[in-house]
Amino acid sequence: MGDNTLGKKFKITSFGESHGKVVGVVIDGTPAGLNFDLNFIQSELDRRKPGQSKLATTRKEQDEVEVLSGIFNNKTTAAPICLIIKNQDVDSSNYEKFKNLLRPSHVDYVVLQKYGTFADYRGSGRFSGRITAGFVMAGAIAKQILNRFNISILGYTRSIGNIEDTKDHFSENFEFLLQQRNKSPVGALDLELSKDMEQEIEIVKKVNDSIGGTIRCLINNVPPGIGGPIFNSLESNISKGIFSIPAIKGIEFGSGFKASRMKGSEHNDPWTIKNGKVRTTKNDSGGIIGGISTGMPIFFTLAVKPTPSIGIPQKTVNVKSMEEEVIKIDGRNDPCIVPRAIVVVESIAAIVILDYLLLEGKIPNVLED
Amino acid sequence: MGDNTLGKKFKITSFGESHGKVVGVVIDGTPAGLNFDLNFIQSELDRRKPGQSKLATTRKEQDEVEVLSGIFNNKTTAAPICLIIKNQDVDSSNYEKFKNLLRPSHVDYVVLQKYGTFADYRGSGRFSGRITAGFVMAGAIAKQILNRFNISILGYTRSIGNIEDTKDHFSENFEFLLQQRNKSPVGALDLELSKDMEQEIEIVKKVNDSIGGTIRCLINNVPPGIGGPIFNSLESNISKGIFSIPAIKGIEFGSGFKASRMKGSEHNDPWTIKNGKVRTTKNDSGGIIGGISTGMPIFFTLAVKPTPSIGIPQKTVNVKSMEEEVIKIDGRNDPCIVPRAIVVVESIAAIVILDYLLLEGKIPNVLED
Amino acid sequence: MGDNTLGKKFKITSFGESHGKVVGVVIDGTPAGLNFDLNFIQSELDRRKPGQSKLATTRKEQDEVEVLSGIFNNKTTAAPICLIIKNQDVDSSNYEKFKNLLRPSHVDYVVLQKYGTFADYRGSGRFSGRITAGFVMAGAIAKQILNRFNISILGYTRSIGNIEDTKDHFSENFEFLLQQRNKSPVGALDLELSKDMEQEIEIVKKVNDSIGGTIRCLINNVPPGIGGPIFNSLESNISKGIFSIPAIKGIEFGSGFKASRMKGSEHNDPWTIKNGKVRTTKNDSGGIIGGISTGMPIFFTLAVKPTPSIGIPQKTVNVKSMEEEVIKIDGRNDPCIVPRAIVVVESIAAIVILDYLLLEGKIPNVLED
Amino acid sequence: MGDNTLGKKFKITSFGESHGKVVGVVIDGTPAGLNFDLNFIQSELDRRKPGQSKLATTRKEQDEVEVLSGIFNNKTTAAPICLIIKNQDVDSSNYEKFKNLLRPSHVDYVVLQKYGTFADYRGSGRFSGRITAGFVMAGAIAKQILNRFNISILGYTRSIGNIEDTKDHFSENFEFLLQQRNKSPVGALDLELSKDMEQEIEIVKKVNDSIGGTIRCLINNVPPGIGGPIFNSLESNISKGIFSIPAIKGIEFGSGFKASRMKGSEHNDPWTIKNGKVRTTKNDSGGIIGGISTGMPIFFTLAVKPTPSIGIPQKTVNVKSMEEEVIKIDGRNDPCIVPRAIVVVESIAAIVILDYLLLEGKIPNVLED
Repeated sequence: MGDNTLGKKFKITSFGESHGKVVGVVIDGTPAGLNFDLNFIQSELDRRKPGQSKLATTRKEQDEVEVLSGIFNNKTTAAPICLIIKNQDVDSSNYEKFKNLLRPSHVDYVVLQKYGTFADYRGSGRFSGRITAGFVMAGAIAKQILNRFNISILGYTRSIGNIEDTKDHFSENFEFLLQQRNKSPVGALDLELSKDMEQEIEIVKKVNDSIGGTIRCLINNVPPGIGGPIFNSLESNISKGIFSIPAIKGIEFGSGFKASRMKGSEHNDPWTIKNGKVRTTKNDSGGIIGGISTGMPIFFTLAVKPTPSIGIPQKTVNVKSMEEEVIKIDGRNDPCIVPRAIVVVESIAAIVILDYLLLEGKIPNVLED
Repeated sequence: MGDNTLGKKFKITSFGESHGKVVGVVIDGTPAGLNFDLNFIQSELDRRKPGQSKLATTRKEQDEVEVLSGIFNNKTTAAPICLIIKNQDVDSSNYEKFKNLLRPSHVDYVVLQKYGTFADYRGSGRFSGRITAGFVMAGAIAKQILNRFNISILGYTRSIGNIEDTKDHFSENFEFLLQQRNKSPVGALDLELSKDMEQEIEIVKKVNDSIGGTIRCLINNVPPGIGGPIFNSLESNISKGIFSIPAIKGIEFGSGFKASRMKGSEHNDPWTIKNGKVRTTKNDSGGIIGGISTGMPIFFTLAVKPTPSIGIPQKTVNVKSMEEEVIKIDGRNDPCIVPRAIVVVESIAAIVILDYLLLEGKIPNVLED
Repeated sequence: MGDNTLGKKFKITSFGESHGKVVGVVIDGTPAGLNFDLNFIQSELDRRKPGQSKLATTRKEQDEVEVLSGIFNNKTTAAPICLIIKNQDVDSSNYEKFKNLLRPSHVDYVVLQKYGTFADYRGSGRFSGRITAGFVMAGAIAKQILNRFNISILGYTRSIGNIEDTKDHFSENFEFLLQQRNKSPVGALDLELSKDMEQEIEIVKKVNDSIGGTIRCLINNVPPGIGGPIFNSLESNISKGIFSIPAIKGIEFGSGFKASRMKGSEHNDPWTIKNGKVRTTKNDSGGIIGGISTGMPIFFTLAVKPTPSIGIPQKTVNVKSMEEEVIKIDGRNDPCIVPRAIVVVESIAAIVILDYLLLEGKIPNVLED
Repeated sequence: MGDNTLGKKFKITSFGESHGKVVGVVIDGTPAGLNFDLNFIQSELDRRKPGQSKLATTRKEQDEVEVLSGIFNNKTTAAPICLIIKNQDVDSSNYEKFKNLLRPSHVDYVVLQKYGTFADYRGSGRFSGRITAGFVMAGAIAKQILNRFNISILGYTRSIGNIEDTKDHFSENFEFLLQQRNKSPVGALDLELSKDMEQEIEIVKKVNDSIGGTIRCLINNVPPGIGGPIFNSLESNISKGIFSIPAIKGIEFGSGFKASRMKGSEHNDPWTIKNGKVRTTKNDSGGIIGGISTGMPIFFTLAVKPTPSIGIPQKTVNVKSMEEEVIKIDGRNDPCIVPRAIVVVESIAAIVILDYLLLEGKIPNVLED
């Protein structure tokens, strides 16, 4: 049995399956009085919508958000908000075919072990990346609240395969970065590198293969003092949320794994005074020390594994005959999930940070205009 | 305010400060009937005890575990177990001296922002690595229970600075690995590399600097089907626990960040049959797919930052005068925290895995002999 | 902000408003493999459906359950189940009229204090008894699982006003009790008393008044040893769930308040042996000692206050003018909520007991046929 | 396995046994900056200390509070506070004698069912009323914080057996009530009735019997708007906490069970204006409507069962021989637990209310002088 609720004061509960009727989310703990901006939620959903680009799956879904509860006079009421999108372009024939063949690095085997034969296997059911549409709807509401308090979140593609943007962008102009990112079909900040990344994806796509990458997420203007030691550290709760996104296999905060190769004298962030405020001159800590925000931009980087569904023949096992076979998957899969995952990452970040701010009393329960 | 409780059915609550009276833990949810092995708890504590080696801090502590509750007739009763160690070698003079000087990459500033002037700053108080002694005591109990169910956990130093053990050891003999690890003063598996690592630490120590590293943790014999999709993924809960350990700045499961550079055809783990059981021929997934255990060894790798307390002069800010100053820290700090952190990592892994097994009904609430 | 999720392993999340689009629930933690019995859910919903009797509100709703997720091949999959009913017979005109007049013993004032003017006040919005339809849908699923393990739950009207059924029915034949209860329009077990109770309701209805009552809930065949001391007591979690039902103002377990007038020698339940099993000769403890089930029938009794919406003029305050006024409410309200609340009480009981049994490993995560 | 942690933001974790080394509590979530008043905690503990009166058990305990963590410069730091008292006057001989005999209405049987033979049965171990000393220590800290925000809590004995104080005291002067209560050896408000109550206890004591009673708890000056609908109702969380106190078998809010006999026109609390504020003219709602505070005094009443340990021969079962026997208990037990339980009830009330106020941002995380 899963645990489909995340958060303490701002809580989201996920439901739905890839080929079921809907994918949805209940968002509990939204302050009252927020103008409900359906268009913004839709625009966020559109960022992860399938079938938009030659770089993504060909599944076509409108992914039109529908409100079931929690909104009155076009404002939030503090009641739980239930949002859904419908599943429309459902073709489950492929999955029927593979019913007894374990797709490599896919959930088929663990699902059998955990749920017997009862799970909805169509389109990976509950394990589909499509479930994250619920995170995006909830994240869109979280972002709107954070924006009222001047906190902004920006995710971008840091690498596709070996094409990597090695710059730390956190000190650059946020608005400019956002514009660049939105121009790039793969969500990169550097439009030159973006082209190389697109090409990388096209190459693997041509050979029915897939490719991994990394996403970096910047969070600006989180006030200092948010988070806590031990089990309430920002890293603990951000990572807990982030690893609910399928295909994420690693997370690092600030300089992360690079820090493991550094000396203290290199890694330490010296304190300084900027405009009368205590700041650090660099930010290898990624805006977090001792689990608590420093007031510097928070950033973390994620490893995204290559999509496991590939059209190349692979060795596997038939669990009915218990014999080894070869499988060739012809599903409509993304050659690289990174570009569509960016908005999901931002959404989880928004949900987690908002939960902290509400819990710590930094955002009130009623938002007056 | 912190959140000092971790877990759902096997819950630990941490308390204590570096220079207070004790460091302790309440362990709630232990099945009844477990033989209480004080010696094992003590031997685990000894692995992280300070003052044992020229590579670690000179603070001398006996760290002798004391039982306050939960044990009767030398067995667990299912009642909460409270364990403490006393703080004895306490020298707070240094901390008094630095009261207004922000130690770079240390918690002083965020603590001020969060708790005003009320926090116990002596020895970093609640943010000290010493707090993790409580995790170790709880982890020792968790390990004993897991051992009864044949699950074993092995942490080791994968790298110190640039000295790295690049092998994947998960398919080697566990007992042999354990013996090697215990022979190495830095907790490495390869005794040749171990010497290089020791040297690396001695070099930075000589110049009053510090160095980071990585720790890998192997978990053997977790049955397939443990964990879940979305917010209950193994990665979510392991990472939440792990990031409660100070100095950890990154975590990756299986091939992790390397996966981000791979193609699906390289990364995917083909299924095969070994001794009549479904297994994978390699294990880039690190024993976890879709948030659920595959039955293959689980492994993850952590980035440990260099200890921020170094004896080299650093630029900082005096928060009283709000002027920039230079700070030179002469505390008794570890030049590299990696070797002492291994047992802490294993402990958190044991706590998290046990919680899953209890929640999923795989371990009973009463352990008969 | 509310907290609309209840439970640890079997979790329900409530959403919806009285005059919004839907009332719904997400049911998380259902074991896989349960035959999904839509008809049973519907029959349970019908027990609390408005507009069925001259004793209840005239609001007409089909309350037809609709499945949004979690069911595949007509079985549960362990994925979260989202169920909704639509609101159709919505007439919000009355509520508009009373917008500034505080209905006595109604939520208007506290809602203003808590949510400002943002709450959906129509039909009491989120505070409506209609929300409990979600509890009933979740409870129906919980009951089906409990039934597989021979646990049955029976709620009945113990009193309406001063008409009281003083017998302890727990040792009578359960099937017979159930039949009696289903024959009674007010859900009583004694069909003679039932007539008096009906009359009592008709009398208050005629004068536009309302009346309170008590509900007793019996739970049969809970195995001994379920529950725990301190914060995990059966009484703690049952009461937490029960008080989420509007209009409940008291709960007592076993002989309850009567026990406060008794001596130990009267109240104590002597142990005896029946059919080779340890039992008690009477059951003043209500099947619970030390927060843990004894194996005897569990029972508890609830005080239900009279419906606050009455057609009799009442003194109140106009919060706009801040002057005292007289209010006369003409809404479509139940003169007595007790009969319709019985199934809600049973549902909460089922949800709470199932959560315990799953948590304690007494019910597996996959239900094979 | 138990669940020994209560609360969300202000969390207490209980540990210890009746005849173990200590009884203790970890208090997590205290705001920083509170002056630590050890004397007040001790004075609260003294109110429930055994051996003080001819009306209570003869067990003699100093119950001297000892601080293990969380206090620095005599102020709270926001770190978890661990407090303990030692068990000293331990005589376990009686319990050894009864090892196989089930004490009627006592936990022996359920403990056997739940924990096998592993539980610490001495002095009822984890099920002893002595565990509530931990609640009192935590409650004393909660009360001090509430007092800073003008919220006060007063528990008193409403009845012993049939001797009942039928007045609603909530509109009387709180200071005066407190003085009266402290003059009464049984914690009554009416000193005439107090004498009758004392006599009632002495009578049952003489014949080695015991007697039940009721406790009422008043909470003054909770601001309106605290709590919430559904699972976050004040009644839900207060009752969850209260039922963790052994021997409580019922709770009612406001007029409670009396409300079940009333008409809406009798029960409804008309709104009025007092000193420019919205108030009710009476308070049958007990200060709570829709799960949310109205600003009127909150009050609830508890049924306390008679102590099950009595010196009168009782029928029972020997679980070794599985034969019926007669048991006569000579332990040092209270003939009436009500007077000593008052402070425990107040403590739980304080803990629960403080948790709400912290969660809802009404009390800051740092308390400046």
